Formats: sequence, structure tokens, C-alpha cells
Amino acid sequence: MECQEYGLTRNTERDNLNLNPLQRGGMLPVEARKALIEYADGYSVCDYCAGRLDEVPNPSISGFLQDLAKFINVDEVRTTHGARESKFAIMHALCKPGDTVIVDGNAHYTTHLAAERNKLNVIEVPNNGHPAYEITPEKYRETLENAIDSGIDIKLSLLTHVDGDYGNLADAKAVGAVTHKAGIPIILNCAYSMGRLPIDAKALNMDFVVGSGHKSMAASGPIGVLGMKEEYSDALLKHSKRHKVKEIEMLGCTSRGAPIVTLMASLPYVAERVKHWDEEVEKTRNFVRQLEEIEGVHQIGVKPKEHDLTRFETPVFDKIAENHPRRGFFLYEELKKRSIVGIKRGQTKWFKCSVYGFSEEQIAYITDSFKEIVAKYKDLI
Amino acid sequence: MECQEYGLTRNTERDNLNLNPLQRGGMLPVEARKALIEYADGYSVCDYCAGRLDEVPNPSISGFLQDLAKFINVDEVRTTHGARESKFAIMHALCKPGDTVIVDGNAHYTTHLAAERNKLNVIEVPNNGHPAYEITPEKYRETLENAIDSGIDIKLSLLTHVDGDYGNLADAKAVGAVTHKAGIPIILNCAYSMGRLPIDAKALNMDFVVGSGHKSMAASGPIGVLGMKEEYSDALLKHSKRHKVKEIEMLGCTSRGAPIVTLMASLPYVAERVKHWDEEVEKTRNFVRQLEEIEGVHQIGVKPKEHDLTRFETPVFDKIAENHPRRGFFLYEELKKRSIVGIKRGQTKWFKCSVYGFSEEQIAYITDSFKEIVAKYKDLI
Repeated sequence: MECQEYGLTRNTERDNLNLNPLQRGGMLPVEARKALIEYADGYSVCDYCAGRLDEVPNPSISGFLQDLAKFINVDEVRTTHGARESKFAIMHALCKPGDTVIVDGNAHYTTHLAAERNKLNVIEVPNNGHPAYEITPEKYRETLENAIDSGIDIKLSLLTHVDGDYGNLADAKAVGAVTHKAGIPIILNCAYSMGRLPIDAKALNMDFVVGSGHKSMAASGPIGVLGMKEEYSDALLKHSKRHKVKEIEMLGCTSRGAPIVTLMASLPYVAERVKHWDEEVEKTRNFVRQLEEIEGVHQIGVKPKEHDLTRFETPVFDKIAENHPRRGFFLYEELKKRSIVGIKRGQTKWFKCSVYGFSEEQIAYITDSFKEIVAKYKDLI
Repeated sequence: MECQEYGLTRNTERDNLNLNPLQRGGMLPVEARKALIEYADGYSVCDYCAGRLDEVPNPSISGFLQDLAKFINVDEVRTTHGARESKFAIMHALCKPGDTVIVDGNAHYTTHLAAERNKLNVIEVPNNGHPAYEITPEKYRETLENAIDSGIDIKLSLLTHVDGDYGNLADAKAVGAVTHKAGIPIILNCAYSMGRLPIDAKALNMDFVVGSGHKSMAASGPIGVLGMKEEYSDALLKHSKRHKVKEIEMLGCTSRGAPIVTLMASLPYVAERVKHWDEEVEKTRNFVRQLEEIEGVHQIGVKPKEHDLTRFETPVFDKIAENHPRRGFFLYEELKKRSIVGIKRGQTKWFKCSVYGFSEEQIAYITDSFKEIVAKYKDLI
């Protein structure tokens, strides 16, 4: 059989400054790259398995899970194939088809898909619209109470800690208090927070926290985290009737090989970096201040920023695109000439970006580049 | 936070001859190791995603899936997180809780778990017992007909192509004919075959074939293959009502990052190696002949071998263990002294092993080592 050429190189994204928020939190430190090479082969973590992935002693997956549980302050934790698979498993264990769940209006599409695959109805808490698009605890409470008043039995609730559209950090602690008062368990989707900023599930009033290794925990994809309070472990980690040691919702074992060893090798690095979250927020705020000096560039979402994922409305670039011979492609191309990538080709009305993990010097270079491009085309505005 | 030491090195298994059947088919060729380093970071394959993983053009996941579909002769194919997740998805899409499925008595535990997680009843086709433990098409037909005669509505059937206990190769074509005659779709679990031997889903009368990248396709775990006939693609690849391009059973996207790029990079290598399957079977048969020259070592399962996974009953080693100061550990320790690993510590009554991918010289060294150990302890027998 003749195979096609798949183009398995990634020079462009590896050699340039990549502003894609999806890529900023998943970059491997050197320890994880070493572990990846060591455990590259297929079932590499299963040499010493006695039937349970979470109990493998060598490499010490069991020790790692103890550390991970401490890191996010939960009673029990498992790795899954991603935050979406964690959400699906929780819904599958706690709900039946036809049940209703409540989620915030900034939820990731995978929250909707996890509910749809479980055949659940979804009630949404709207955000407060342009320009902040904020989910407030008051609106969460109001929506929940209205649903309960109209006789709907809500089985489960979910809050997106940091959403992927605006990078807003929700007030998890207050929302957790709201749903607990109503007696409804709550999931915090920490795909964009766990591994970037400190997470204390108990302090945030959360029954479940789910995270993403590839999005925010410096791990090779795909791997997720599923942390829970003890009272839900019987449901989530229920054992098979026939294969006594195997956990049904995990289908026995979940993430083997490359993703789990990189997550393990990165944990000490990640545990250290979350301590410097305030500095990252400060860098993002400076970046926003700098970019907003350009007329026709406005940050939307909550201000000031509390997370690195930032959305800008950029009418100035859209105006240039109207009059530029390369149309909407000019921005991508001008940035690329300056070794900056990660903003979608053709996009000029608005974009999302992140400077997470960049140095002050790199951020200054990036903001100067944007300013330079606007100056270059001032006649087209 | 102080992290424990996880021991992330794998020298023992990488530097020695590893007989563990689980590890033989998942070793990466050099092309896959290069791809792994290139795409080590989190969401690395998502730089050019326009909403669908299976359509990503760079790296060419779309081109790869076309090749993969040809390789196993199916109409549609997706990657999943493993063979178990493929089986779960098929059962979830085609069955409702309380439905009944029929599976062979040599099915992997994950087949049972996929059914249990979907709340399905399972009817089992028994194997023919010691010493062959064979699943015959006649027994499959008889069990199926008895179930239908007693009024049971069977929604789905499954056959394990090569089982993980005896390494028996089932007669898929004949079983496929049986279930098709009864109008029941059938899954072939190819976790131990796809990537080792040629698979032609249509020639084998199969509606679905599932495979395992880490078990038999020279890929980093975890990654699976889910191939299907066109008539089932509407059910399996159904789109979300709200997020029109996203496939519900895949939760949008499945395997990203390290596992998929290694599967891609390995496909040309794997497509070539399946052409030499006959040589592998011949090597296994020679290995069995050599080991059976030792009195008190008998291969069980179908004879002669049609797959590399081999199970031996070894009363001779059990006898030595009875009288050896290190008891059951002596075999592991004697083998390890000779740079041979992969047989569980303490196991002497029987063991599973595989010489897949070893050279004739390596196999001769392994058989000589077993003979040498027996000769060394002949006074203890």
C-alpha cells in the first residue's frame, strides 16, 4: 500500500512566537520531553500493572495521583482522556437519559456534547452580554430557582471556570454555594485554569473538578483530570460486577503511555508555576494596556483581565483588510514576517490570543509588532 | 507542594528482550519517534483545525484516515482512545440500556466493561475448553440460534479476532456469515491483529472493526481505530444538533497529540510489516517446537499457532519453584540474568509470551536460555 505524505513537521509553530491560547499551557518542560522519549512505546506504563492503572507502582502512577489529589484538593482523582471525557463520565454516572442539567452560558462546546451524548436536557445561565459576557452568581441563582419553581428536577450543575471565548474567570465559590443550597452537585470545568492557576476544589465549593493536561498542564495530549469529593466516588468509580477490580466508567484503564508520563513529569513544574499566576495576570494586563493604545483595538470580556486568554475586537485591522490587496490575510502575513503566529489566517474583525509564559521582552516585541503593522498601513485606515 | 519521586525511567524493559505480548506490537519505529518529538506539546495537531480533527489538513490527518480506511478496507474510519472506547461507542450508538449483545467466550475484559457501562446484557459463546479453547463458528451459530429461539432480541454481536489469553485466531469470515444471516451487525475486535496481520473488513464479513494503536500498530498509547461500513456511519458519526460539524459519539474530537502522530508516522511501516506476517507465524511455530522439547512445557490454545501470542503450561518450572530457595521468583530472576524480561515475577505454572519482531538469532538465544535454566536445576525436578 502506498501511503500519502502527511507532513509531520511543526516548524512554523515551534520556531515562532505562538499566540494561540490553546497552545500556551500545553508546552512541555524538558523533564516531560525526557519522559516522553523513555515511555514512547505503546503500553509502556503497563509493565508492572497488576490490574489497575491508578495503582501502577513503577512508574509510580499511584504516588502521582496522591500528589495530584493534593494539588487540587480533592478526595479522589483519576486521569481520563480529556476534560470532555471527564464531564461525560460524571454525567453518565449521575444522570439518566432525559434528565436535566444546568450549565453556564459560556460553557465549552464539549460540555454540550457530553450532555447530548448522555441524552440530557440542558438549561443555560445566560451571560450579561456585550462587552463583558460575564456569568454572575446572581444570574446562576435566578436561572436555577426559576427552573426549580417551574417543577424541573435538576440533577447536576456545571460551571466553566475560565471560558474559551472571553477568558473570563467565573466566581466559582459563589456559584458553588448557590447550587449546594439547592442540593445539586456541581462540576467545575477547569480546562483553562487547572495547571495555570491554583485550584482548591473544596475552598471553591466544588464536588467535581475536571482539567485538561494538554490545555493547561504541560502534557502531551490527550489527557484529562477528574477530581471528586469522596461522597461521589462510589458512583464514579463503581467496580465491574464481573471484573471486580475494574472501574466501569473508566472502562478499566484510561490514559496509558505518552500522555500520562508527560503529565506526571510536568506536575512538579506545574505546581511551581501556578504560584506565579499573579505575575502572568499582570503581564496580560500590561499587554492589553499596550494593545489598547492602538485606536480601534478593544479588549472585550471582564476588565481588568483575570486570565491570559484575551479577546480583542479589532475594527482597525478590519478596515485595513478592506483596502489591502491581500485582504484579510495581511495580518497573518505581517505577523508571520515578524515570527509571530497563532492568529487565524484571514481573521481581522476580532481575535483571541494569549501571552502566557512569554517574557516581558517577548511581550514588548509582540505589542511593538502590532503597532508597527498599524503604522505601516495608516493610509489604508 | 513537594512531589514524590515517580521513577520515570524504563531501562529494564527497553534494554532487555521483552517477551510480554502486550509490548511486542507497540514499539515505535524511528519515524514515529521523530514525529513524537515534533508534536510533543499539548494540542500540537490542532494548529490548522477548522473544527474537525478528522479533517485537519496539516499534518494531514484527513489523508491519513483515507489511507487507514484502505488499509483495513472500510468505508469510514475514525481514531478513538483505544479499542475499548471504539467498542463502547458502537454499543452506545446502536443499543439502549437493557438490550442484549452476543460475544465470544474469549472476549477481552474491556468488551464486558463496554457492555456493562452501556447497561447491556451479554450472551456468551463458550469456547471448546482445554486445551484448544477455540471459538468455533458452529458454536457461535448454535448459541445465537438458541438465544433467538428463546425470544431474545439480539442487537449486536462481537467476535474477538485474536484473544489475549491463548492467542487463538478466530474464523471471522465464517462467524460474520452466521450473524449476517441472522441480520445482526458484528464487530471484530482486532486489538491483537490489526497492524500485525492484514485485515480486510469486507472480506471478513464485518460491519465494524476496532483496533489498538498501542497494542499492535506501533503507536504511543492510548489510541484506537474504529472502522465501519457506510450503512452505520449515520448512527456512529451522527452530528450534534447544536454544534453542527461535531460528531456526538466522538465528543467532537478524540485522539490529539502524541498518540495520533505516532500512529500516522507508523502506518507506512505497519502496512509493510503485515506483508511479512507468515514469517512471524513461522518464527512462533519454531519457538513453540523448541520450547516443547523441554519435558513439562506444553503450548495450549489452537495448534499449530496462527498468532504470536502464545500460552504455555509449564509444570516443569512449577516443580523447580517448589524446591528452589527463591520459590516462584527463580524463573524471573534466571531470565533477567540472561537479559530476558516480560514474564511476570513469581509465575511458574504457566505463562504467556511472544517473540513477535525478534530475529531468528534472538529467538534461538531465548529458547536456549529456557533450556539452560531447566538443565541447571534438573536436580530439583
